[in-house]
Amino acid sequence: MKPFSAPLDDILFSLEHVAGAPVLPHWDRDLAAEIGAHFAAFAEGQLAPLNEPGDRQGGRLENGRVRMPDGFKDAYAAYAEQGWSGLTVPEAHGGQGLDATVLGITSEIFSGANHSLQMVTGLVPGAVSTLMDFGTEDQQARYLPDFASGAALATMCLSEPEAGSDLSRIRCRATPSGDKWLVNGEKIFISGGDQDMSETIHHLVLARTSDDGLKGLSLFLCPGTLNDGSRNTVSVTRIEEKMGLHASPTCQLRFDNAEAELVGEEGAGLKAMFTIMNHARVDVALQGVAHAARAADIARSYAAERVQGRGADGAPVTLDHHADVRRMLDEIDMLALGGRALAHLTLVMIEVGEAPEFAEFLKPVAKVYCTEAGMRATELGMQVLGGYGYLKEYFLEQAYRDARIAAIYEGANGIHERTLVTRLLPADAGRAFEAFLQAECGARGPSHPRLLKLMQSWQAARDQVLASADPSELAHDFMALTCGTLLPFLWARMTDAAEHHPDPARIRRLANKALAPRGFLSTT
Amino acid sequence: MKPFSAPLDDILFSLEHVAGAPVLPHWDRDLAAEIGAHFAAFAEGQLAPLNEPGDRQGGRLENGRVRMPDGFKDAYAAYAEQGWSGLTVPEAHGGQGLDATVLGITSEIFSGANHSLQMVTGLVPGAVSTLMDFGTEDQQARYLPDFASGAALATMCLSEPEAGSDLSRIRCRATPSGDKWLVNGEKIFISGGDQDMSETIHHLVLARTSDDGLKGLSLFLCPGTLNDGSRNTVSVTRIEEKMGLHASPTCQLRFDNAEAELVGEEGAGLKAMFTIMNHARVDVALQGVAHAARAADIARSYAAERVQGRGADGAPVTLDHHADVRRMLDEIDMLALGGRALAHLTLVMIEVGEAPEFAEFLKPVAKVYCTEAGMRATELGMQVLGGYGYLKEYFLEQAYRDARIAAIYEGANGIHERTLVTRLLPADAGRAFEAFLQAECGARGPSHPRLLKLMQSWQAARDQVLASADPSELAHDFMALTCGTLLPFLWARMTDAAEHHPDPARIRRLANKALAPRGFLSTT
Repeated sequence: MKPFSAPLDDILFSLEHVAGAPVLPHWDRDLAAEIGAHFAAFAEGQLAPLNEPGDRQGGRLENGRVRMPDGFKDAYAAYAEQGWSGLTVPEAHGGQGLDATVLGITSEIFSGANHSLQMVTGLVPGAVSTLMDFGTEDQQARYLPDFASGAALATMCLSEPEAGSDLSRIRCRATPSGDKWLVNGEKIFISGGDQDMSETIHHLVLARTSDDGLKGLSLFLCPGTLNDGSRNTVSVTRIEEKMGLHASPTCQLRFDNAEAELVGEEGAGLKAMFTIMNHARVDVALQGVAHAARAADIARSYAAERVQGRGADGAPVTLDHHADVRRMLDEIDMLALGGRALAHLTLVMIEVGEAPEFAEFLKPVAKVYCTEAGMRATELGMQVLGGYGYLKEYFLEQAYRDARIAAIYEGANGIHERTLVTRLLPADAGRAFEAFLQAECGARGPSHPRLLKLMQSWQAARDQVLASADPSELAHDFMALTCGTLLPFLWARMTDAAEHHPDPARIRRLANKALAPRGFLSTT
Repeated sequence: MKPFSAPLDDILFSLEHVAGAPVLPHWDRDLAAEIGAHFAAFAEGQLAPLNEPGDRQGGRLENGRVRMPDGFKDAYAAYAEQGWSGLTVPEAHGGQGLDATVLGITSEIFSGANHSLQMVTGLVPGAVSTLMDFGTEDQQARYLPDFASGAALATMCLSEPEAGSDLSRIRCRATPSGDKWLVNGEKIFISGGDQDMSETIHHLVLARTSDDGLKGLSLFLCPGTLNDGSRNTVSVTRIEEKMGLHASPTCQLRFDNAEAELVGEEGAGLKAMFTIMNHARVDVALQGVAHAARAADIARSYAAERVQGRGADGAPVTLDHHADVRRMLDEIDMLALGGRALAHLTLVMIEVGEAPEFAEFLKPVAKVYCTEAGMRATELGMQVLGGYGYLKEYFLEQAYRDARIAAIYEGANGIHERTLVTRLLPADAGRAFEAFLQAECGARGPSHPRLLKLMQSWQAARDQVLASADPSELAHDFMALTCGTLLPFLWARMTDAAEHHPDPARIRRLANKALAPRGFLSTT
């Protein structure tokens, strides 16, 4: 199996020349490249080698505590030691104060090297943002340094046995007790709900403070360790046996009068939780991209080495001489590059802040497209390797298992598809997306009849959805159409910028494919 | 998790009213139903309960021999005791002498209940056909009774470390020695290459008898046990660690001067091997169908029970009230019913024997469509279950892992796609397929403009492929188009026959969806 190699050139090209990161006031190309190179070296040297053994060994529950697989604790210590924990924590609280674009670089590389460990560490930036947006100065001063130093990791506690996608059914309850709150109840599917890497774990918990449906929910921070050094009464009652991500312990947690602090206003829990969830969604999109990029790398290198069949002259050829294999390799590469461009555009639009409605529209689209891309790319990668792809030693089977969850967690893809048609499309978000398509078409003029045609088809479909009595019936198809519309626009940007990529021919070849009319017959 | 329940009503409807089994002289509807019911009871009671424990425990190599998971040996003994081993063995040799349609019923049910065990036992009918077609009377008399009684199981030994899809690179060599042959070499990816269920194993081995490429290959039968009762020199050097099918030992076998008999003529090994491979291909298509049907059953029952979200009146509703879930449930059901209709049509066309060219065309189409259907259906089923779908206890994750291999083994799907455009389409097979479409359109007259339009699109694409300098470049798209053309034709048959199904409304609703123009906009 080819060792992990971070796709840093592709990442920088995408951020700078496709997603438009230079519009951000803080964007510093050289700094981004330098940080990316340092993290790539760390990920290649220390995170990736633990990925396959971590999958085999898995996390396990021993005497009520979760033990991570061998080597994970040391890798995390090195991660914290090198300052990666504090990447987005403000400098005043001990961090580097970098923005989401730089985090987007390291997150993708992390997920490609070791998705499981990225899961367990990956909620910190969202927790940091939540405290910055909704926490008091006192809370920021007490908690952010722990995150910056790596002493604490974070969890996001939403789901309950009877409340998955429907948070109005949450039963976990918080009651005031002096200047604190006490949380009682059960939470399920908590990634990194316990582990033995960080000194403590701060849980962000959505709990009920009144019976008023979604408005009765408030957000709490439940520290793993209390001021007197004793453990808070949060216990692991079970870890799930899953298809993949075995090194990411998915915990069922029990809160028994666990001490907690309110974060933000009482009854405004959902709003506060959305900060961490929104961050997590782009992160999940990048997990899909990471799997696609890894699949591309493994499949390409295998196909270039493996001799199979004969060429027209009768001489043995490598696998990548076969039309069908080349088709699959290109498709995997397109899923990785296209998905990354979409995730990066979303990141930049969130960061720039001037077009929040457009960013709102892009978030579910990026989540759905990129997680599907991860699934399809690992599936195709496995197919390129044939029987060997099905074996553990060639890794793609692990990527296939790990990538699958991304379409399910952080809001199942069907929920995002429904959100797009019912909430975003009829509002400013839908108009902002249309304005983006129009601007891109306008900037290119009549030289791009293909983009114009795509936009017009999308507009016609949009009208049909808006006129529909029940748009949710059309949600899945409309999401597919929106992805199928947007991606060629991103490929047009890639073509325009191809000269800035170290391998312009590759970008142009793939863009030509992506911009060709879909379907088999040239007339369709 | 819902226990396995054999979809016998769907199977009988499909064989009799969609695939046209009644044209077969030996078709006996009551007998088929009776055998199906008996096998369903056996599969539900004894095979299915071993499926999940078998996956956990897996087969393992101990002291050079493979041990199957607990319970498999007893289940196989019961299978043999009840006479299932000899289903297709001629009565003269101790079997029941039934045809491939009845085998199609039991094979699908077997794969749905326990794909791994089906793999290990499933090569017997192909071995029986091979001996009937190419073996001498003496060979038939010596080997068929073992297969009929279950004393022997069969393997198919093709792949080698340097020869996967490209059999011309086979190095395994057979040399004459008195009235026997001696086989030397290594074979990989041998399903059931060893196990502890049957008294012995007869290996069908493709080995080189001259250096003349594919023409230098001959087929041999390597018995596991020699006449003097000693073991033949076939040893297991390794069993593979795979993503799924853990209870189906995939072996690397070493032949060290292993005694063997030539089956068929020297140098005609490939032709003889095709008999067993062709049988295996329809069998693999039915594995995909079986996974799709199982996914449909589990997802449907889960969605009918799980309460999630609220209806228009604000009252809690079950999952199957949501548009997106209903879409997924229907899609899974369509994959199962559509795939089965295609596999059954292929089976019946092979059996009827009057249109061998049409059957040739259908084989790769069924293999590709049905194995993809198994992958997509288990993926969708998992999505319906959300986070629970990713957990081991809800079984779909195992189905997802097990179903994946079917698109890879028995000829990777890309190979079948290439065969279709390069070998079959330009020949009588392609014309036979066109004749089928024309006949189906003709039988329905102008009342089916949709079918007529599909046929015309297919013909235009076919012309484009035939005119292409390198048809293999178009192989994947053309296969997709062929499936997208053929399936609506099969759904039209299902609509016509809906009254013969216990639930005609379900058939009609799904057929309406399948026959609607594809794509989002009603104008496309």
